[in-house]
Amino acid sequence: MSDIDGRAVAAALRAEVAADAARLREEGIVPTLAVVVPTDDEGTAWYVRSIGKAAEKEGIDCRIEHLKDPGRDEIVAKLQELSADPAVHGVICQTPLPEGVTLSQVGGYISPYKDVDGANSESLGRLAAGLRTFPPATAAAVLELLKREDLVLDGAKAVVVGRSTVVGKPAALLLLNESATVTVCHSRTKELAAVCREADVLVAAVGRAGMINADFVKPGATVIDVGTNPTADGGLVGDVDYASVAPIAGRLTPVPRGVGPVTTAILLRHTVIAAELTKTHG
Amino acid sequence: MSDIDGRAVAAALRAEVAADAARLREEGIVPTLAVVVPTDDEGTAWYVRSIGKAAEKEGIDCRIEHLKDPGRDEIVAKLQELSADPAVHGVICQTPLPEGVTLSQVGGYISPYKDVDGANSESLGRLAAGLRTFPPATAAAVLELLKREDLVLDGAKAVVVGRSTVVGKPAALLLLNESATVTVCHSRTKELAAVCREADVLVAAVGRAGMINADFVKPGATVIDVGTNPTADGGLVGDVDYASVAPIAGRLTPVPRGVGPVTTAILLRHTVIAAELTKTHG
Repeated sequence: MSDIDGRAVAAALRAEVAADAARLREEGIVPTLAVVVPTDDEGTAWYVRSIGKAAEKEGIDCRIEHLKDPGRDEIVAKLQELSADPAVHGVICQTPLPEGVTLSQVGGYISPYKDVDGANSESLGRLAAGLRTFPPATAAAVLELLKREDLVLDGAKAVVVGRSTVVGKPAALLLLNESATVTVCHSRTKELAAVCREADVLVAAVGRAGMINADFVKPGATVIDVGTNPTADGGLVGDVDYASVAPIAGRLTPVPRGVGPVTTAILLRHTVIAAELTKTHG
Repeated sequence: MSDIDGRAVAAALRAEVAADAARLREEGIVPTLAVVVPTDDEGTAWYVRSIGKAAEKEGIDCRIEHLKDPGRDEIVAKLQELSADPAVHGVICQTPLPEGVTLSQVGGYISPYKDVDGANSESLGRLAAGLRTFPPATAAAVLELLKREDLVLDGAKAVVVGRSTVVGKPAALLLLNESATVTVCHSRTKELAAVCREADVLVAAVGRAGMINADFVKPGATVIDVGTNPTADGGLVGDVDYASVAPIAGRLTPVPRGVGPVTTAILLRHTVIAAELTKTHG
């Protein structure tokens, strides 16, 4: 088994982003990402700061818009304001959202041209229809990791465990666009291990620490672990039981240092693409 | 094996539509469906007339807007005009479209509130996000047929053969919303018959006459045949080889008299729902 090195992929992507950002700045465009943070959650604050640092490092300005105990209307107003601001190219609405507010609802107020984390359902629909769009960054990171490996997705059997709007469903649509035969599993799936064992490519996005063990993996399969489950000691573990799966899988992303850094790099790449789009779409 | 009677399902749906349309008319709202026909194709003209007749019969006014050799801009302008017309509640853009124009492109100009055949990618995205929306009528017809049978979709293995934006992908998303474990197959799928033989529910939407034969069907499975392939003598056959599959399947939709009449009934149902929506959305 070989580990898929998420940090190396992220570094390669970020080098491209830095070059694009430098070129845009020479043209007088300062690529700018705005992150709306509607929560006081500590983990979220840490994550948002890490995006901000990564952005600045590659030449992207990052505006963090913290909202104190916002209601739905305040979040919507901020997303509309940023969508209309010509100095802002990418807009993210960070989760968790306040009780009763869903990302699917408020995401519709992010302009599709600036929707660098694919939160607008129009972006998801364009993905399903095979049109140009920004997929959710985590789902795009899964594909980026797979496409940089020496494997054939065309005709491969891919199984995605998890049917969320932000990861499972868009990852399935991206894999389908690559001509994989795609199965989406979830909490109601029967004989889950057996279904997963059919997969050439297995994507774990369930949010349950270590749930995917050796029983779920065909020898030689490529396994992408999207899980980021906090541990008691402040660390992170994936949805895949690494020790059990590593001897069986052909390739496996670790957690941390797998999907996570690539997701951040994809957000930055989407932001420079969005900045580039302003040349034609204003 | 028992045939699933599409005409009976359509009749039940249309009776509900007629009652809703009558109630709306009493309130001064004349439910109105506009069909843009950008082709001189004979089969299309026949199909559009059949929608028109069905609509009028259930109390829905139907406007057929024939465009003679239109370009993309003319189609877009007509869809925008109808989307803005308060007297029109449902808008369909009929295919085939002129060379170089795709439904995914022009569908974006149909207001999602009037998009009764789910041609706007925003409608598809809302479907993927689990938000209220109009799915493409054919995909909705597949689900309507399944939900009226005495079978459990929750946890069932569903296989959809075909990944089109108008049928395969939305049918897969609808089945996923019902908590089926869903596999999408297509022309690049390996060992297609074996994958299909796993299905409790098999949806055939490939557009190849009689391709799905007994080898593809698990004994007792429910098979929905979306195919409408013209025969040399002017008839229609499905994607399923009826004679071969009928002895094996638990339930099977015939062609004609399966998905087709239900699709028309769904278009009418969507139109009365869209007319109802004008009370809140203008």
